[in-house]
Amino acid sequence: MAFVAITAGKPYVKKDNIAVGDVTGVIGLTGVAQGTIAVTFEEQCILTIVSNMFGEKMEELNEDIADAVGELTNMISGQARRELDEIGKVFKAAIPTVVTGKKHSIRHYGDGPKIAIPFQTDGGNFTIEVCFDR
Amino acid sequence: MAFVAITAGKPYVKKDNIAVGDVTGVIGLTGVAQGTIAVTFEEQCILTIVSNMFGEKMEELNEDIADAVGELTNMISGQARRELDEIGKVFKAAIPTVVTGKKHSIRHYGDGPKIAIPFQTDGGNFTIEVCFDR
Repeated sequence: MAFVAITAGKPYVKKDNIAVGDVTGVIGLTGVAQGTIAVTFEEQCILTIVSNMFGEKMEELNEDIADAVGELTNMISGQARRELDEIGKVFKAAIPTVVTGKKHSIRHYGDGPKIAIPFQTDGGNFTIEVCFDR
Repeated sequence: MAFVAITAGKPYVKKDNIAVGDVTGVIGLTGVAQGTIAVTFEEQCILTIVSNMFGEKMEELNEDIADAVGELTNMISGQARRELDEIGKVFKAAIPTVVTGKKHSIRHYGDGPKIAIPFQTDGGNFTIEVCFDR
């Protein structure tokens, strides 16, 4: 949809619980376990993605960018929930919250493992993090 | 618990959907509605609260501060859920996510009203925001 070539890196279990980025969408999950999904973008990465989505050059982290990150977070959580649903793991999603601010850090407070999936695009990197309570 | 004098301001319905702060705890809720609670602190406010909790002067927004905000967010959400439960509104909470970064902004993506409750302490201000889908 964003006409961006994306390369998925190898998922890894995080030792620390910190992600650093410039715009982050967070969505809480409840159901068979309590958890959260966070999608964290470097500034240039999300500017490139949204520029391609809108067909218009975006140059700053404004409300349009935050709205797009909220929508992308909803889509990613929705897709993950559909696939989990098919294997009998039913989750409900809360509503997305989007944080904008240069080089903020994000910590998750579940006691289960924290899985990070790094993605590379031509415009920069983003990471999807998933954390659940045991 | 934090030995801080707190004055609650008048709750108000936000026209925009932006909170600005230095440390924010976010927790998703699902149940009779989908929503989110965010607790946003000014730096000096949370440093004062945590200094009082620990009996030790905290001077920077480090991991201890983030942990305390995660715990406070859990407590605030737990108390709210108990009171809602008593009037028959049952919610489940996801896990807290804590964002640290000077003057970040927070946006919620529910289509219901966004309620903000401002609090004043000697050390500075914090705000509890609640947003739900209709």
